[in-house]
Amino acid sequence: MKSEVKKHGTGCLVAQGVDIFGDRWTLLIIRDMLLYGKKTYGEFLGAGECISTNILAVRLKHLEAEGIIEKRRDPENGRSFVYNLTDKGLALAPVVFEIIRWSGKHAAASDVKRTMLRRIEKDRDGFMAEITARVKAQR
Amino acid sequence: MKSEVKKHGTGCLVAQGVDIFGDRWTLLIIRDMLLYGKKTYGEFLGAGECISTNILAVRLKHLEAEGIIEKRRDPENGRSFVYNLTDKGLALAPVVFEIIRWSGKHAAASDVKRTMLRRIEKDRDGFMAEITARVKAQR
Repeated sequence: MKSEVKKHGTGCLVAQGVDIFGDRWTLLIIRDMLLYGKKTYGEFLGAGECISTNILAVRLKHLEAEGIIEKRRDPENGRSFVYNLTDKGLALAPVVFEIIRWSGKHAAASDVKRTMLRRIEKDRDGFMAEITARVKAQR
Repeated sequence: MKSEVKKHGTGCLVAQGVDIFGDRWTLLIIRDMLLYGKKTYGEFLGAGECISTNILAVRLKHLEAEGIIEKRRDPENGRSFVYNLTDKGLALAPVVFEIIRWSGKHAAASDVKRTMLRRIEKDRDGFMAEITARVKAQR
């Protein structure tokens, strides 16, 4: 983790962004929250990419420290926690959208994923409004 | 390197994209080529983020294997090589732009970088046309 979140003094906005959210797992957690509404530890663990519990715990702490997500007690179960995107986290949607667009053109994609790609291409504002509404409702 | 470019079968476009270009150093090399016109090994090494020669060599090979950059003999010096972005590499500009926009809003940025940010906000098409022309002229 240390080398992946290395800070440096060049002031470059790309480097700063990549240092904050650019680690592979971090971006996949943000994707799960943005696109699939996942919000619990168990949901992140079961997301199909087989993240290990210790990597997940470190990444969630990092995202919380950066103000990208917020952790609070699950209102339906006081013994567990839910994670929600802050406005700073929600603002990463355009980065995720552009990654999807690029991959849709340049990587192999299944039909299911093509549906999401089409949504981003044809109804980006509507899709974003839907995501924003869901994220805010979960807070 | 192995864990960072891990392939998997979920078919997710975000995961696919991140596996191809999402490693910290890989994205910073792409940024240097897109925004600063860097094209030689020496220029990448001196880019301010202190990438080591072995990491740089591995990342350049990876980008070449993915068809994001092309390596050829330097026409001005047959003993060295230059690296150029392919169309697939050039198509990553919107991802880099969105990272810059997000960081410009949510990370500390110097005045110099603010100039680039303004360019992306106010004249994105013109900036993209300039980058495209430079990348194509370098091929």
